[in-house]
Amino acid sequence: MSSTETVTETPNTEILTHPFLQELVRQIRAEDSYGFYRNWTDELMLKPFIVSREAKRKISVDGEVEANTKGRIQLFYRAIAALVEKETGLLSQIVIDLSHEGFGWALVFSGRLLLVTRTLRDAQRFGFDSFEKLAAEGEKLTQSGIDLAKRFPEVGNL
Amino acid sequence: MSSTETVTETPNTEILTHPFLQELVRQIRAEDSYGFYRNWTDELMLKPFIVSREAKRKISVDGEVEANTKGRIQLFYRAIAALVEKETGLLSQIVIDLSHEGFGWALVFSGRLLLVTRTLRDAQRFGFDSFEKLAAEGEKLTQSGIDLAKRFPEVGNL
Repeated sequence: MSSTETVTETPNTEILTHPFLQELVRQIRAEDSYGFYRNWTDELMLKPFIVSREAKRKISVDGEVEANTKGRIQLFYRAIAALVEKETGLLSQIVIDLSHEGFGWALVFSGRLLLVTRTLRDAQRFGFDSFEKLAAEGEKLTQSGIDLAKRFPEVGNL
Repeated sequence: MSSTETVTETPNTEILTHPFLQELVRQIRAEDSYGFYRNWTDELMLKPFIVSREAKRKISVDGEVEANTKGRIQLFYRAIAALVEKETGLLSQIVIDLSHEGFGWALVFSGRLLLVTRTLRDAQRFGFDSFEKLAAEGEKLTQSGIDLAKRFPEVGNL
C-alpha cells in the first residue's frame, strides 16, 4: 500500500464500533454461509457502502441497478429492521421495490405500521460519503422507526 | 366462435358492473395514453385477469414473471388503492416487490398505515377463476383496507 493510499483509506476506526455499523456487519456476516468473509475486518466489509461524490458521478444511472448494489441497499434496511426489532420486540420486515431505472421504494414495517418509507432514486449510486455519514443516516432512520413503533404499538402488533 | 367456446367464454355480464371491476377497467384505461383499447369492451380488457386452474398449471413457475403479468398485478392493487382513496380521502400508494422467482410482496399504504399486505408466490400464475372471484377478492381486500384506514386515521394521515 502506498503512502497516499494510506492517507485516503484509513478511517477513524472508532466509528466502526457504532451500534448501527456493528449491526450492518452482523447482517453481512449472517449472509456469509460459506465463511467466505470470516477473516475480513469489519472495515473491509463496510467499505463498499462508502462511495465518494466523485465515484458516484462516474456511475451511470442509465443501466440497471447492479446485484451487489441492490444487495447493499437490502442490508442497510435490514440492519434498521433488526435494530428496531431489538429495541421494540416487534418483528420487522423490509421490502425494496426497485425499477430497472433505479427508482423505487424502501420500506421497513411491523404489523400494519410502516416504520421507514424511503423513495429511492439513482439507486445505482447508493452509498455514503463516510462511515460517519453511514452510521448517522442508519441511526436516524432506526430512531424514527423506534419512535413510531412506541407511538402506535397497536398498529405495529397487528 | 364455436358453440363450445361460447359456453365457456360468455360470462354473466352483470358482474362487469361490479364497482371493483369497473375501477379495474378505469385503471387499465388510465394507462392507455394512445387510445389503443378505446374500442375494446370492458369484458375483453378484464379477460387476461381470468386464468383457469388448468391454464395455471401450464404456466411454468421457473422463469421470470412476464411483464404483462406484473402489469396486471400492479393494476389489481392499484384498483384497491384507488377505491380506498375514494372512500377515505387518504392518498394511497402501492409497492410490488417481486423476485425473479415469482415470490414477493404486494403492499398498499396510506401515510404510515399498511392497508393491504399480501405475500405473493408463483406470481407467474396470477389470475382468478372467474370475474366473480376477481370481484370478490378485490372487494374483500378493499373493504379490509377501508376498515383499517377508519380505525387508525392518525397513522393513515402521517
